[in-house]
Amino acid sequence: MLDKSIIEAENAKRAADLETDFNQLAERLDRKGIDINAIVKRAQGFGVAVPSWGTGTGGTRFARFPGEGEPANIFDKLDDCGVIHTLTRAAPSVSLHIPWDKADPADLKAKADEYGLSFDAMNSNTFQDQPDQTQSYKYGSLSHTNEETRAQAVEHNLECIEIGKAIGSRALTVWIGDGANFPGQTHMGRQFERYLDSMKAIYKGLPDDWRIFSEHKIYEPAFYSTVVQDWGTSLLTAQELGEKAMCLVDLGHHAPNVNIEMIVSRLIHAGKLGGFHFNDSKYGDDDLDSGTIDPYRLFLVWNELVDAENTPDLDLAHMIDQSHNVTDPIESLMVSSIEIQRAFIQASLVDRKALAGYQSDNDALMASATLRAAFRTDVDPILAKARELSGGAIDPIETYRASGYRAEVAAKRPKADGSGGGIV
Amino acid sequence: MLDKSIIEAENAKRAADLETDFNQLAERLDRKGIDINAIVKRAQGFGVAVPSWGTGTGGTRFARFPGEGEPANIFDKLDDCGVIHTLTRAAPSVSLHIPWDKADPADLKAKADEYGLSFDAMNSNTFQDQPDQTQSYKYGSLSHTNEETRAQAVEHNLECIEIGKAIGSRALTVWIGDGANFPGQTHMGRQFERYLDSMKAIYKGLPDDWRIFSEHKIYEPAFYSTVVQDWGTSLLTAQELGEKAMCLVDLGHHAPNVNIEMIVSRLIHAGKLGGFHFNDSKYGDDDLDSGTIDPYRLFLVWNELVDAENTPDLDLAHMIDQSHNVTDPIESLMVSSIEIQRAFIQASLVDRKALAGYQSDNDALMASATLRAAFRTDVDPILAKARELSGGAIDPIETYRASGYRAEVAAKRPKADGSGGGIV
Amino acid sequence: MLDKSIIEAENAKRAADLETDFNQLAERLDRKGIDINAIVKRAQGFGVAVPSWGTGTGGTRFARFPGEGEPANIFDKLDDCGVIHTLTRAAPSVSLHIPWDKADPADLKAKADEYGLSFDAMNSNTFQDQPDQTQSYKYGSLSHTNEETRAQAVEHNLECIEIGKAIGSRALTVWIGDGANFPGQTHMGRQFERYLDSMKAIYKGLPDDWRIFSEHKIYEPAFYSTVVQDWGTSLLTAQELGEKAMCLVDLGHHAPNVNIEMIVSRLIHAGKLGGFHFNDSKYGDDDLDSGTIDPYRLFLVWNELVDAENTPDLDLAHMIDQSHNVTDPIESLMVSSIEIQRAFIQASLVDRKALAGYQSDNDALMASATLRAAFRTDVDPILAKARELSGGAIDPIETYRASGYRAEVAAKRPKADGSGGGIV
Amino acid sequence: MLDKSIIEAENAKRAADLETDFNQLAERLDRKGIDINAIVKRAQGFGVAVPSWGTGTGGTRFARFPGEGEPANIFDKLDDCGVIHTLTRAAPSVSLHIPWDKADPADLKAKADEYGLSFDAMNSNTFQDQPDQTQSYKYGSLSHTNEETRAQAVEHNLECIEIGKAIGSRALTVWIGDGANFPGQTHMGRQFERYLDSMKAIYKGLPDDWRIFSEHKIYEPAFYSTVVQDWGTSLLTAQELGEKAMCLVDLGHHAPNVNIEMIVSRLIHAGKLGGFHFNDSKYGDDDLDSGTIDPYRLFLVWNELVDAENTPDLDLAHMIDQSHNVTDPIESLMVSSIEIQRAFIQASLVDRKALAGYQSDNDALMASATLRAAFRTDVDPILAKARELSGGAIDPIETYRASGYRAEVAAKRPKADGSGGGIV
Repeated sequence: MLDKSIIEAENAKRAADLETDFNQLAERLDRKGIDINAIVKRAQGFGVAVPSWGTGTGGTRFARFPGEGEPANIFDKLDDCGVIHTLTRAAPSVSLHIPWDKADPADLKAKADEYGLSFDAMNSNTFQDQPDQTQSYKYGSLSHTNEETRAQAVEHNLECIEIGKAIGSRALTVWIGDGANFPGQTHMGRQFERYLDSMKAIYKGLPDDWRIFSEHKIYEPAFYSTVVQDWGTSLLTAQELGEKAMCLVDLGHHAPNVNIEMIVSRLIHAGKLGGFHFNDSKYGDDDLDSGTIDPYRLFLVWNELVDAENTPDLDLAHMIDQSHNVTDPIESLMVSSIEIQRAFIQASLVDRKALAGYQSDNDALMASATLRAAFRTDVDPILAKARELSGGAIDPIETYRASGYRAEVAAKRPKADGSGGGIV
Repeated sequence: MLDKSIIEAENAKRAADLETDFNQLAERLDRKGIDINAIVKRAQGFGVAVPSWGTGTGGTRFARFPGEGEPANIFDKLDDCGVIHTLTRAAPSVSLHIPWDKADPADLKAKADEYGLSFDAMNSNTFQDQPDQTQSYKYGSLSHTNEETRAQAVEHNLECIEIGKAIGSRALTVWIGDGANFPGQTHMGRQFERYLDSMKAIYKGLPDDWRIFSEHKIYEPAFYSTVVQDWGTSLLTAQELGEKAMCLVDLGHHAPNVNIEMIVSRLIHAGKLGGFHFNDSKYGDDDLDSGTIDPYRLFLVWNELVDAENTPDLDLAHMIDQSHNVTDPIESLMVSSIEIQRAFIQASLVDRKALAGYQSDNDALMASATLRAAFRTDVDPILAKARELSGGAIDPIETYRASGYRAEVAAKRPKADGSGGGIV
Repeated sequence: MLDKSIIEAENAKRAADLETDFNQLAERLDRKGIDINAIVKRAQGFGVAVPSWGTGTGGTRFARFPGEGEPANIFDKLDDCGVIHTLTRAAPSVSLHIPWDKADPADLKAKADEYGLSFDAMNSNTFQDQPDQTQSYKYGSLSHTNEETRAQAVEHNLECIEIGKAIGSRALTVWIGDGANFPGQTHMGRQFERYLDSMKAIYKGLPDDWRIFSEHKIYEPAFYSTVVQDWGTSLLTAQELGEKAMCLVDLGHHAPNVNIEMIVSRLIHAGKLGGFHFNDSKYGDDDLDSGTIDPYRLFLVWNELVDAENTPDLDLAHMIDQSHNVTDPIESLMVSSIEIQRAFIQASLVDRKALAGYQSDNDALMASATLRAAFRTDVDPILAKARELSGGAIDPIETYRASGYRAEVAAKRPKADGSGGGIV
Repeated sequence: MLDKSIIEAENAKRAADLETDFNQLAERLDRKGIDINAIVKRAQGFGVAVPSWGTGTGGTRFARFPGEGEPANIFDKLDDCGVIHTLTRAAPSVSLHIPWDKADPADLKAKADEYGLSFDAMNSNTFQDQPDQTQSYKYGSLSHTNEETRAQAVEHNLECIEIGKAIGSRALTVWIGDGANFPGQTHMGRQFERYLDSMKAIYKGLPDDWRIFSEHKIYEPAFYSTVVQDWGTSLLTAQELGEKAMCLVDLGHHAPNVNIEMIVSRLIHAGKLGGFHFNDSKYGDDDLDSGTIDPYRLFLVWNELVDAENTPDLDLAHMIDQSHNVTDPIESLMVSSIEIQRAFIQASLVDRKALAGYQSDNDALMASATLRAAFRTDVDPILAKARELSGGAIDPIETYRASGYRAEVAAKRPKADGSGGGIV
């Protein structure tokens, strides 16, 4: 665990400048009728889940280049998540991936408690074969033509729910890679029906206060067709399953050029938006760090969410889902948490009354300018102040680097090899 | 009207070769257990609607280069459609576009009867302003912020239904260009709700034996967001309207790389597939001639349709929707009718029993090969034989050129100028 | 011409707040070792050309919805450009489009002098037919199979040079729509050779102190292939023509997902970057307002330009090229000028020394954060101060609206109709 | 090695039908003035190289699902390549990947001789770290900021040349994954210069009768920028290196919607087309089996190649580059060889004289129809006859399955595990 004195020492170096910047921003916002302290409170209330697997170095089908001090198991991963939340105060929960993160629930809870972490949605895995597995997922899992393979995949998901119940999770995210690499390889209609049947079997095992998230993805690992390829199919799935079934949007899982914030709006309309996997992308499911490629797109997504935040029953699960191939994963997860939080806070500054007027008048230029004005506001002082007030670091990266944490765990943890793909 | 003797003379030149080719193909298909005459009957039963506006030369926002003998009104257009059907026997109906095709219903029916043509789905237009129009559609039509503009657009659609009733149409296709060019220009959720309200008002005016088609399009003319941007939104629309509301798929209206045949499969699953606008595309909504860019994709769409042809209540409206910028529109429409028919017939040759076996066994290679074997079959003799048997031309293009029709109408019709965009 | 007193009155309302904001920003930048006044000077030195045709309302192939007070001729357009520059001080030159803007050179210069405007690159037009034209461009212009058509197109370009010489222009931009809508329609290799031959003929007519810009575009108006489809072909063209030939990059003319800033870098490496057409896009050549869809991409382009600004012989022509379909074009052009200037100024704030260090150390996280820190700086006070110091408006939009200019010209100019495509 | 008697037995079952089909096709082609035997000779002369690594099951970053009897080393791989060529007679050479395929050159040649195989281009690998490697390629190889890393990568390429010389190869293909995952991570201009310097060092070591191929790829494994991202950069590279440097086109390495056959045409114009990596794709670098997604695109590429086949100095290296994730790799490679051969033969049937006439007359419809007519010709009897005449199998897949080869090697070879990415 990080020594709090490091945070204090690093914060002390930056506190005066922060105060200046914060007061200047407060003055500018005040001129627009915005109370900066209310915004700071919103920032403090923000949290995004970290995926346990995100703490390891990711890779591609071409290679994985491990970093120093990679976590060897779920407890190492929780330690890393603890660092992230301690410094950012913006990542209070962890999302587990089964089977890799299986462990005694009491031990998991105890470790999480050390850092004030809770457990977010459970993630099942049926896109890899495990050594002891009876049926292979080479040709699919929940939608496989073989009944026994489907049953095995259903059983695995039910097990994820059981584990989740023991550690306080309240949701199951189902993403499958099932699809086809050739036209004709599968009967797309019957494959979807098999998928729905399997999902219904899982749904039956879902506790009343749980939700199940259906996550779509246009392609990869299947390269011709994918069972849940877009939000339309995800919606059909959630509709057929029932009211505990919701759609989850991963920002990188769409066709080129698709307007993602519009999908967000449509799923809100349909009452089926369940949550997000945050990341950024330029070409495909690149799993790049949130806000590093197209920060305005991230803002536009949050603009929809802030606009709809009073919608009855809208209860969103926010998770980061990235592949950190060339950075220290802890650093990337800290920065990403903050970038997501930044978009949320920028979207909170939109003058919605003025915007509604411009929209009503079809004053496209001023409506657009209203969004950009909020996006352009440098809310760094708000985010830093929120962290400071919550006991985190004014500058999480510099504080982390000053702490020597990575070198410390590198000395303790076994050295990882480069084998294996990027998803663990 | 084309002189039948021209068809006979041209057919006479080609009849012997056709007989040879047909018999050879019959022998090859027979070896696979396929009765060629049953396939010829399927070809004879095929028909696709021609859009009245497709008989004029199309254009882009950069220019329109008119051709010789452009049709000046709906009766000229029906004459051109008559030529198309006379020669191909594959285009027995016409789809009208209001307001351009407004005319006395009795006159329309009389003219259509001359050629044995019927009237397919009606198309409303609210993406252009007409000279006499009270409210402008610059900022939208069915989803406009202004109630009066929406009412005007609803009224126009109801008028289309009235006209359609008088001429024997049974469906209304609604495509709107409403959307936004800037983030923030519209509130995407409220804009969709206004659209749905307008559609419900139109739906109320729909006769019991009619259907209404909702057509999605990712972009253009709106370049940031479009109200009905994808099949997910189209599905939501059809679901909210009721059982007479169906989704129409235009092959060129999707994001890059999207698997269109999969959307077809999903809409069939949802019981909401209503029909198609056929064309081909390489970059966007290019409206190129069907089957000229990616003929295998067209085949894969038809593979889904033939596979599902016994689905209860599946009743599809097929129309061509292309922009003929550099060809004689009559020629393009003839070739396109045949290319669509070709894909249908190729898909009819798929060995579905073998395919189902390969799919069940996850023999991806042979499943894929089974589709390609059908696609590879040169079914030209079947299509030509079907035309010959139905009184059409063995070679419609050569016969058309031999007829001198274009020169004849060029001499009679007023010369068109290059002004105006491509959509009339 | 705008009454200066309006600018003064509007500026007076905003001067105090600007002073506060400016001083606060000066203090923050000073802490980073940046002298704000040097940056203000850079902003004052910035200028982007306005295309004459951009002052009219644009459209799509579906429709054009004209606005109030559309300019009826080049002198009206120059008046509008005068307003833009007067208020923003960032748009000091105008780019003409021939044949539409043909007029007596002395009159053109006199009108431009009124507003302190100069003339940027000339633009030829061979993608539309003019009423008096002998050869049609329906099947191409500079690359047409017909020698006389090519000669006519070459002649038109030479005429553009002559006009340009008379008004002080120093460059010719050649963009052609030549290509094909069908595989096979043209022989792509021979078509390119014909294009090169025509370009060589134009190049021969180029004065020694002129440059010729080759502009690539992936598609539209041709929908299968385009002669100069990407920067590779544009580079080949510029290489074959000679040292006065350079490549022009229009931000919206690329395939989906393409990394545009990398093309900028490559063309700088090749010594062939000549200039830009600025706009923004989400789907294709959407011609949306600069910086409204992906402002970070615009910043990344400018990051390359600022990084390379000391490259010998780098002399870039910057022009806006947008289609203003739903806004007042004057407003869009003012905002766009400022957004482009904003990206330039943000890029000027990048800590290049720190960045080089991170790059050298492969500290991807901090390198990326260094760019984002510059992008995030709200440089509005710098831009506003630059305008104020140069005699422009602190808030150009509000000042323009206060001036009543649009209503004034609407009363004087003839009412435009909605016919015609979007490109005039 | 496959028992020839199996081929004979299987061919015997199919010879009579083939004879019928062949004669019928001969008659149809004869009517068009085409001598089928000349076409059969072209088919017999065709050959495409098989990549050694293609004989193993591929995978994605998510998982690899190995098949039965995976080759354990280069000699197993050569055995598999021997089967492919024995049955198809269309895959007479093998392309090695170093370091995996390193072995005693005499042994390699001896094994290849058994099957009549030769060695095609050598492939270096600097996108993975090897266990014994001093410098890591995590942040690049030939373009790395660290001089020693670049030197190591250059040295590896020189070693590949040495190995190639010993086994009769005549070319080196260089593909690197170098790039960046974040804007700012690398200085794109300096990174390219470092790459060029490294390539020049390799070029110096190239024998006079060798060629070096530069292969571009838009993205993956780098997800923001890639050093050789498109054919423009590949062309710049080949131009700077010299006349032995050529560009290699992998069909799956382009941005969405890009017209690949046009790039082929442009590289032929520039005198820099060196060869191909064949595969098919729907979304990205999917590495799917050639001709299974868009067979017409493959035909259009071959249409350019056949059109240009008499170009002086055009000497193309053709290789398959696919990832066989769900099929028996031997089967996929056999089918793919034949699909590539099919496109070549279909393109050989294009009536080029008629086509040139239509192009000259701008008869887009008939020009396009001329290409489609050739594509539509079912050339299966030609391909089968070519195989039969060359001693191969009329039906390679059925013959292979009848041979029991896979089960045989599965019994002998060690069982592969699922670890590792898809590229070995």
